[in-house]
Amino acid sequence: MERKQALQKTLEMLEKANIVLTEEEKSKIEITDMGLGHLEVEGLQLLTYINTDRYCAKELVLFPRQTCPEHLHPPVFGKDGKQETFRCRWGTVYLFVEGEETDIYCKPPAGKEQWYTAKHGIVLKPGEQYTIPPNTKHWFQAGDEGAVISEFSSTSRDEYDVFTDPAVVRVGD
Amino acid sequence: MERKQALQKTLEMLEKANIVLTEEEKSKIEITDMGLGHLEVEGLQLLTYINTDRYCAKELVLFPRQTCPEHLHPPVFGKDGKQETFRCRWGTVYLFVEGEETDIYCKPPAGKEQWYTAKHGIVLKPGEQYTIPPNTKHWFQAGDEGAVISEFSSTSRDEYDVFTDPAVVRVGD
Repeated sequence: MERKQALQKTLEMLEKANIVLTEEEKSKIEITDMGLGHLEVEGLQLLTYINTDRYCAKELVLFPRQTCPEHLHPPVFGKDGKQETFRCRWGTVYLFVEGEETDIYCKPPAGKEQWYTAKHGIVLKPGEQYTIPPNTKHWFQAGDEGAVISEFSSTSRDEYDVFTDPAVVRVGD
Repeated sequence: MERKQALQKTLEMLEKANIVLTEEEKSKIEITDMGLGHLEVEGLQLLTYINTDRYCAKELVLFPRQTCPEHLHPPVFGKDGKQETFRCRWGTVYLFVEGEETDIYCKPPAGKEQWYTAKHGIVLKPGEQYTIPPNTKHWFQAGDEGAVISEFSSTSRDEYDVFTDPAVVRVGD
């Protein structure tokens, strides 16, 4: 999918979720396939509202059944890794973190199972949220309609994220 | 206005802004007149989504022309005071911070002028945001329709806020 098409799809989903953006913000939406080359299967669309040395807030958009690959936020500069709260605003999110295996029906992308080790699943519907501790492996997938998620967190330093799949390159578009 | 009526009005405004809450969250909405006894003139309705030792996120609701009294967030426990980003989601917010006086048309509540000293005004419409530095006096008022504001910030410690008006008592409902 080309950037233009992916951006249009992202904007349509944000509109469905009634999230209002300025024109400048629309032009700053990040669309990343994490270097894996199949955006609709593995990837993420996001807008960072604010990222200071104390806190961060983003809006995340996932296309239907799109998966954000497993990763964790390690300690950086002697400080704890990023702590983040996912709040589902629209659609459904299947979030998996380290912990006891649950039987929620949601599968990793076909052929990529070895890079998805966190098996404790949480289902988030609009108005529901979950806080992911620092240094904890997690991945997430949208339901059949896609999902819009508000992320509240400590400072974001995406370039230090550690992905389970060694093929991931965490770059913007 | 009774709590029940104020809560109903708050929920209606959140619905207009398409903000979805769980039933448990609805029951935890804070409605405060700051001890001033006239909620519709000076006061605030809010829901804290998450408040950890690293970051905080809230939804704020202001009734039409309701004003949140001037205050600042001082350093606490040797750390900088709260830094916060206001993002307007619905309606209009008139935000005033310390700085050069602007000629935005928005007046403090009648008879309370002496407790409103910050005169640098910023108008926020949906999708617009502003970050207030720590230790900086600020107050805000909704436009004629009211306002819904997402607040992203460092850790919130409301009990340490310093209000300009000595009559303010920062307590929940």
